[in-house]
Amino acid sequence: MALYVQKYGGTSVGSVERIEHVADKVKSFHDAGHQVVVAVSAMSGETNRLISLAKDVTETPDPREMDVLVSTGEQVTIALLSMALQKRGVNARSFTGWQAGMKTDNAYMKARIENIDTDAMRKQLNDGGVCVVAGFQGIDDDNNITTLGRGGSDTTGVALAAALGADECQIYTDVDGVYTTDPRVVPNAKRMEKITFEEMLEMASLGSKILQIRSVEFAGKYKVPLRVLSSFAEGNGTLITMEENSSVENPVISGIAFNRDEAKVTVKGVPDIPGVASKILVPVSDANIEVDMIVQNVSEDGTTDFTFTVHRNDYHKALDVLRNTAAELNAREATGTDDICKVSMVGVGMRSHAGVASQMFKVLADENINILAITTSEIKISVVIEEKYLELAVRALHSAFGLDADSDAN
Amino acid sequence: MALYVQKYGGTSVGSVERIEHVADKVKSFHDAGHQVVVAVSAMSGETNRLISLAKDVTETPDPREMDVLVSTGEQVTIALLSMALQKRGVNARSFTGWQAGMKTDNAYMKARIENIDTDAMRKQLNDGGVCVVAGFQGIDDDNNITTLGRGGSDTTGVALAAALGADECQIYTDVDGVYTTDPRVVPNAKRMEKITFEEMLEMASLGSKILQIRSVEFAGKYKVPLRVLSSFAEGNGTLITMEENSSVENPVISGIAFNRDEAKVTVKGVPDIPGVASKILVPVSDANIEVDMIVQNVSEDGTTDFTFTVHRNDYHKALDVLRNTAAELNAREATGTDDICKVSMVGVGMRSHAGVASQMFKVLADENINILAITTSEIKISVVIEEKYLELAVRALHSAFGLDADSDAN
Repeated sequence: MALYVQKYGGTSVGSVERIEHVADKVKSFHDAGHQVVVAVSAMSGETNRLISLAKDVTETPDPREMDVLVSTGEQVTIALLSMALQKRGVNARSFTGWQAGMKTDNAYMKARIENIDTDAMRKQLNDGGVCVVAGFQGIDDDNNITTLGRGGSDTTGVALAAALGADECQIYTDVDGVYTTDPRVVPNAKRMEKITFEEMLEMASLGSKILQIRSVEFAGKYKVPLRVLSSFAEGNGTLITMEENSSVENPVISGIAFNRDEAKVTVKGVPDIPGVASKILVPVSDANIEVDMIVQNVSEDGTTDFTFTVHRNDYHKALDVLRNTAAELNAREATGTDDICKVSMVGVGMRSHAGVASQMFKVLADENINILAITTSEIKISVVIEEKYLELAVRALHSAFGLDADSDAN
Repeated sequence: MALYVQKYGGTSVGSVERIEHVADKVKSFHDAGHQVVVAVSAMSGETNRLISLAKDVTETPDPREMDVLVSTGEQVTIALLSMALQKRGVNARSFTGWQAGMKTDNAYMKARIENIDTDAMRKQLNDGGVCVVAGFQGIDDDNNITTLGRGGSDTTGVALAAALGADECQIYTDVDGVYTTDPRVVPNAKRMEKITFEEMLEMASLGSKILQIRSVEFAGKYKVPLRVLSSFAEGNGTLITMEENSSVENPVISGIAFNRDEAKVTVKGVPDIPGVASKILVPVSDANIEVDMIVQNVSEDGTTDFTFTVHRNDYHKALDVLRNTAAELNAREATGTDDICKVSMVGVGMRSHAGVASQMFKVLADENINILAITTSEIKISVVIEEKYLELAVRALHSAFGLDADSDAN
């Protein structure tokens, strides 16, 4: 007998029919003798409906009242799912955030879980029942309702699993696992049986939108085995674990992530004096623009070219800021482009394999793809290329690094 | 400076525009230096939407989970109204049932309030703020969410007023007060400035659907002055008080209530032996049919005719039950009709004025209206008549007893 925490997102509970389907899934685990705690999101569309009501009242709703408002979405789901389980003869009981003892700090709309008083849930589990818990919400020390911010139901699931010492936290979603890359770009991308937390973090932050990144960090920190799987299909999904793949057949590269929402700005001919980087970046950060990759080339005439990437939405704002800075610093010019993308290869296997970067550059060179910028970490290499080459680059790398589903390397 | 508890029903908060309007009303009391606690219902239509979601899952939803589900309706309203008040510069804070310390028994879907821990609300009032409380809901001793049953927001308002020692509980609704009778039947019906709790109870139970009867009982028991007034129009509404009207100009009759949802069943020729009434009524009660008026005529041949009225929805069921009983008792026959109605005159002035009944019967006789049954209490006389005479009877009585707006008797 195992204890599973299962989290079902908004799409998985988006209608009464889908809630019934989730009830079937939960019942099958319960019937097999397992203990099950279910964390659910609001029915898809519901949170947006509530936010739009608030926006009709005021453009700047009070965060405390926003949390009172939007937390009703998950409360509706827990009641309906509990009813659907009871209809199937399963002893089920709903728990709002405060009933589940979910204590958070008082940062409305982006609260962090501080601890969980699991007594009430333990009692229900010991009575042979299923706990159905509202995701995304909790209470602070003064009994105010708080929410963890959008997508926070994943974090609820992981926190419940950690607090209850669950054997596994299962995140049910609309994909059947984590793939070596986006199957829409590479049709023979493979579902991974396993991935490490580190790899998952690098994949997620780079654009694989499967899991909330905070929940992965959280699961890693508390060593909660995390499994991503489909609400709609059968299958084992992808297990996210602490263990690194060690068998010889395992590839050096686990997956390839990419991100189209990139733009690149450059200030050219900046006098190369100490502190110039901060003179350039502080105004950018003051304008609330997040900077991703940073590249500085020292030239021979005592000036330097300074390049960084930003989210494509911030491109024009960043260019404006940079033009002002360029004038102040007597730089030659500020330029930029927003038709670029970022491709990243991720894998803990890189640690023990030299030459991954050079092999990557060779694959791209063979396809005549020019690399505009490079950054590396222990388990990731990212390159910026022109956006038009994205599919070509990802497919070529996917194949060259033995990730294709029909590849011998697997 | 007074402390007001104001209750706004579903129609009064049925849209964002109406919530804004309620915020204006509340602000005007707050600006005048009064303390205000607002109890609100779910936006009109919302409770039905939630119930229909539950019914899509199961025809017999668990009452505990129903309360978790429907209590979200008021929670949405308190958040939106608090936002609307804050937008107007009013310090407002929402309270769910449990946050307001609303403790109930554990009878889901029809819970009764046991006590209110007012500390959190007191703190908000002492800080110069408005409390916005979710009507209709509370928690039991085990932290389960409960609801007071439909319409229970009135009771929440009265209970808050009693617990906080409010100067007045104001029930805002879509009518501007309590009228001497339904203005749709008698166009010159008058709004009453005052009515006693006793009279209001008789009027309410007889079909004036303005106030939940339990909230009136509750207000009477705790001596909370209750005022019914319109959310949409200006005016003082109707004050429901302990005081009886004592000035000589006040009429003997305060108002005329009526009810169309009536049916009458009769068993004829029952052997007139002891216990025959219970032999007839017990099977009716066992069939969950509520009996209203009961009339028994003793005839001369040792048999009796036994008549009672029921809600029109129960007519056919009652007739079936009665046919079985008639057969068992060797009665002559069981018959009935569902084209009847009940007209009731209510007034504490009756206590000190004899002859009200005979005057009533004379007025009806003058109009050739046949009385099918009569019941009386200290402050009420009800007659059953054919439904087709309803408007004629009410208008004739309204005029004869000096209730018309243009009457000299006022």
